[in-house]
Amino acid sequence: MEKISVDTALIKQLQNLLETEAYEQLEELLQGMYAQDIAEALNRLKPEEARKIVMRVEKEKAIKVLVEMEEGVRESFLSTYSTREIADEFIQNMDSDDAAYVIGHLSVKEKEDVISNLTDIEFASSLLSLLNYEEYTAGSLMAVELVKANINWTVSQCIEEIRRQAENVDNIYVVYVVDDFERLSGIITLKNLILSNPSALIADVSNKEAISVSTSTDSEEIANLFKKYDLVVLPVVNALGQLVGRITVDDVVEVIKEEADEDYQLMSGITEDVDSTDKVWVLSRARLPWLLIGLMGGIASSRFIEIYEDQLKINPEMAFFMPLIAAMGGNAGVQSSAIVVQGLANNTLGTKNIMPKIWKELRVALINGLICSLLLLGYNLMFSDSLTLSMTVSISLISVIIFASVLGTFIPMVLDKMKIDPAIATGPFITTTNDLLGLAVYFTLGHLLYNVF
Amino acid sequence: MEKISVDTALIKQLQNLLETEAYEQLEELLQGMYAQDIAEALNRLKPEEARKIVMRVEKEKAIKVLVEMEEGVRESFLSTYSTREIADEFIQNMDSDDAAYVIGHLSVKEKEDVISNLTDIEFASSLLSLLNYEEYTAGSLMAVELVKANINWTVSQCIEEIRRQAENVDNIYVVYVVDDFERLSGIITLKNLILSNPSALIADVSNKEAISVSTSTDSEEIANLFKKYDLVVLPVVNALGQLVGRITVDDVVEVIKEEADEDYQLMSGITEDVDSTDKVWVLSRARLPWLLIGLMGGIASSRFIEIYEDQLKINPEMAFFMPLIAAMGGNAGVQSSAIVVQGLANNTLGTKNIMPKIWKELRVALINGLICSLLLLGYNLMFSDSLTLSMTVSISLISVIIFASVLGTFIPMVLDKMKIDPAIATGPFITTTNDLLGLAVYFTLGHLLYNVF
Repeated sequence: MEKISVDTALIKQLQNLLETEAYEQLEELLQGMYAQDIAEALNRLKPEEARKIVMRVEKEKAIKVLVEMEEGVRESFLSTYSTREIADEFIQNMDSDDAAYVIGHLSVKEKEDVISNLTDIEFASSLLSLLNYEEYTAGSLMAVELVKANINWTVSQCIEEIRRQAENVDNIYVVYVVDDFERLSGIITLKNLILSNPSALIADVSNKEAISVSTSTDSEEIANLFKKYDLVVLPVVNALGQLVGRITVDDVVEVIKEEADEDYQLMSGITEDVDSTDKVWVLSRARLPWLLIGLMGGIASSRFIEIYEDQLKINPEMAFFMPLIAAMGGNAGVQSSAIVVQGLANNTLGTKNIMPKIWKELRVALINGLICSLLLLGYNLMFSDSLTLSMTVSISLISVIIFASVLGTFIPMVLDKMKIDPAIATGPFITTTNDLLGLAVYFTLGHLLYNVF
Repeated sequence: MEKISVDTALIKQLQNLLETEAYEQLEELLQGMYAQDIAEALNRLKPEEARKIVMRVEKEKAIKVLVEMEEGVRESFLSTYSTREIADEFIQNMDSDDAAYVIGHLSVKEKEDVISNLTDIEFASSLLSLLNYEEYTAGSLMAVELVKANINWTVSQCIEEIRRQAENVDNIYVVYVVDDFERLSGIITLKNLILSNPSALIADVSNKEAISVSTSTDSEEIANLFKKYDLVVLPVVNALGQLVGRITVDDVVEVIKEEADEDYQLMSGITEDVDSTDKVWVLSRARLPWLLIGLMGGIASSRFIEIYEDQLKINPEMAFFMPLIAAMGGNAGVQSSAIVVQGLANNTLGTKNIMPKIWKELRVALINGLICSLLLLGYNLMFSDSLTLSMTVSISLISVIIFASVLGTFIPMVLDKMKIDPAIATGPFITTTNDLLGLAVYFTLGHLLYNVF
């Protein structure tokens, strides 16, 4: 097999082979492709075309193709199959975590139908229990397929057991060691097994202090464990300490990616996890909340400016720099909060000792505020007639940058303490707050200065 | 060992043990901690304290602690050592990729000093060649330590070789198969080795179509390969196809994390990769470019509003809704671009067929724009005296949301085609553009409507 670039030419070729019913050539082409590449191609074909292609893929690979398809595409693809076919052709040959992942997206009715059509009762029941775990917990991420050995065995007994169990488990990184009550009591790597004396006791060659998580551990915590301890696979135990599954690094890479996407969207003012292939109304609904909050912020600022209507009548030039002040406050605030939000997410920043951080932000803001407001002052002295306006704008600008930076540091930390995702602080929230703040500073100062000079 | 939560209590305890010179207790405590947790604790201690603690950690773990420290912390920590000590106590016992990573951050002079102090010439020269690879390429990410076997060997010969080589290689996931010219010709997993007949030929049990990359492959592409093909380790070959190293998933997780952080910062208007522990002037410099662009945008909008000074004198209430229009344009634009930028990063979105995507954005914008502007109209009809103003504001709002959404979709796609990172499009760029755009629509429309009614 080789990596194939999934481009328009390949798509055309696939459609062509389907139309001309050149199935032998199609099968040959598909044999040379990775499941992931086939899935990528199917994302760009119609469900009926996709079905015809998957029919020509060998069974084990077809399963992988299904798992790798995009969610929406898989939904339409599976809708061309009956629940009995879904169970027979795909689910019953899958690893439990993939199976749970795929049918987890079906409706409750379909889910039950698929499971009741499974012939392997043991598999069906472990699937049912996987589906019961809450989303984003270790239980929902784990697979039940793993290789385990009893702590009282010898190394050679363990290797025998691997041979026996290996067929069901795709990737073996370590063998889990359990006691007579199925409680996890250690791990042993394949490397250690190969290097150990065949007659040695597992108890003597295993690592007894393996990191494990419980079924209810949150996926974000799991991702942090993998990142911090450079893990490849992580055992999952139940409340009794019994080994119930394992989580592999590829699923965690997925979690890390999804989390980053979610943060990115949150800070862009999108409240649900959506992607560009979602339906129009889903996209609308995900964006509306922050637009409405922005709207309220805008109305509030209109009420505020109204207070200064008389001032604006006398000095309409005050209006010229309103957008500048508002925008710069927003920019500076977002910059500060981004650094803090990231620090909190990466655990490089405690919420203790807030003061030194605010002090640092204050100095950064002072430098940048000073540079920006001096530049603006220079510009205004050259091109504007009003000294009062020039001074108002520049003093407002530096004040707003400082205020916004401090708020941008402070708000995410407070949210974090209140157990609210601080990512929500960056983006629209900070922007809206700082719009208001900036205008308040600007008009208060303007009112003052225009009355003095 | 067990995971220890690195909190203020632990830090206090460490400092206490140092002060009272209770080194036995300190060593005991450190023995029970993971290297990663020790590193996390050191991040919060002074360099001299850190040095005293690392002295009490067993050698192999001390190396890991050094690798896991934060960059800035490691820099100050290493500054308490001479280059000879750095070579002796840390670098010479490290894996090549970690060694290159650590000394890669030193000054050119220190780098050369450290390397010339290494006693293992072979290691020193492979380190030198690793340091020559450009940052963010496979060459700079890989380790040269790996287990390889000749294609003409038998399985039992291969297992013998693993025993011999295993001491130098921490984690063995697969054995690389090479021909007589050291060219990569396949891989074999430890699982397959265990399951195969000891007298079988490696050539017959290895997988000959392993995915590999060249030393110059970009880290982003590598991360995508790991994600797409669920890899744990990836071989690296030179231009002759010879095996020169391997990249493990933990390094790639780091790359994925860094990329996400970079995107997040780019969209927050921060141009360099910084974190909250960086120096004040580094933080200032990273933020200034976008503040200056924002400043120019603000000045441009002030010039624009100036054109309508007379209008503002007669209808100062026009100023009330300027911030609302500008902010909503910014919000809607950022929302649209975020979805597109993400789609481009995840490869779920081709740049072909731009029109259907813009059409979709248009419909989303229409729905949300309609909802927002109707709400605003309702508010204004209730609380404002001016029908003209109410109409101007609401019509401007829906126009701006639609314009901003289309621009937000269009700009990242164009940037992507021009090979510029589209992440730069979200955030300050879109916000600044849309501020200007929003005001243009608002005043043009206002001018028109006030003259008609």
